[in-house]
Amino acid sequence: MSTTRSPTARFIVLEGADGSGKSTQVARLAERLRAEGRTVVETFEPGATALGARIRALVLDGPSASVGGAAPDATTEALLMAADRAQHVAEVVRPALDRGDWVVCDRFVPSSLVYQGVARGLGVDAVAAANAWATGGLDPHLVVVLDVDDAVADSRRSQSDRLEREGSGFHAAVRAGYRDLARSQGWVLVDANGSAESVAGHIWSIVIGGTDA
Amino acid sequence: MSTTRSPTARFIVLEGADGSGKSTQVARLAERLRAEGRTVVETFEPGATALGARIRALVLDGPSASVGGAAPDATTEALLMAADRAQHVAEVVRPALDRGDWVVCDRFVPSSLVYQGVARGLGVDAVAAANAWATGGLDPHLVVVLDVDDAVADSRRSQSDRLEREGSGFHAAVRAGYRDLARSQGWVLVDANGSAESVAGHIWSIVIGGTDA
Repeated sequence: MSTTRSPTARFIVLEGADGSGKSTQVARLAERLRAEGRTVVETFEPGATALGARIRALVLDGPSASVGGAAPDATTEALLMAADRAQHVAEVVRPALDRGDWVVCDRFVPSSLVYQGVARGLGVDAVAAANAWATGGLDPHLVVVLDVDDAVADSRRSQSDRLEREGSGFHAAVRAGYRDLARSQGWVLVDANGSAESVAGHIWSIVIGGTDA
Repeated sequence: MSTTRSPTARFIVLEGADGSGKSTQVARLAERLRAEGRTVVETFEPGATALGARIRALVLDGPSASVGGAAPDATTEALLMAADRAQHVAEVVRPALDRGDWVVCDRFVPSSLVYQGVARGLGVDAVAAANAWATGGLDPHLVVVLDVDDAVADSRRSQSDRLEREGSGFHAAVRAGYRDLARSQGWVLVDANGSAESVAGHIWSIVIGGTDA
């Protein structure tokens, strides 16, 4: 596992389907870590760098009347996500870890394994290989997957981008993909149907447990 | 070799460093093939699709005052080129070959092996693996590399994009990369220091010879 040269740095990724409450929990976790005296970089994918924001627009805006053209092919979509990730690792994540900071990230490689590998049908191994190259083999110390029931996710999910507007079959495949891959990939699955407060408490106990181990 | 289901289709790629005269020769070859009654799709990389044109701008414009941010990391650059290629194959090249057309393309996978694999130092095997995935294993029937002396290339090369503005060491590495890889990759090297007319004649004899074989 390639992570960092600093013994104090930790790279924690929160994952889950749209509507799982990730963004809220990333903010809460970062806040609590800072309250404990950690230096925390709170970040996200896709689109956290200037270049990445433009790549994100290519993937998520979809074809428009002003720009024209076809929607991205599934492989194109996966390669654009990997390109965004390569830039994010080079500009943000690696430098933070090398300084000894904690990095709390909303989505990372697991999103591509599930969205493009499983739900788009490109295959987990092929997507994993491209992403291993994109990240230079950087692995998080901990991946927490927020797992919510379909009805909860459907009620929370916005329709603001091309992936969020996919049909319910796509979103069900995403949620099943997270559950199926969690065991083999070593991701920690957390029941995220409860209150934000209770879910935050559960995540905190995992993060602290992982640090003490 | 995965090419096409049509027995008449041919996929021909012209390659070479900036200033090698590729664009001129692609146009001449397509014109001569059409004069012989072939249906020809004349295309190029990067940027031939609507999505690809936007990807090309991300790679070649470089950081600007209006957009800000860092230049693409070398791996990001390679993944963006592969994303452009995946979309080009899906939207343009595969459909043309499946119709039985000839495709004459200005740059393809060999450009990435040389520019990103050799000149940027990412390694030929890693770049080849990402591109095999991007293209679904599509290989050209013929790759012709236009080889010109350094002085000729330097005098012809424009400075219109970020890669063209790289230093002379980068361009020398590109030209050496084409020469070094040609043998192992099965590319046909053509001396392109002469007149456009004589180079076109040389390319034509190779294309016709390859067709008859």
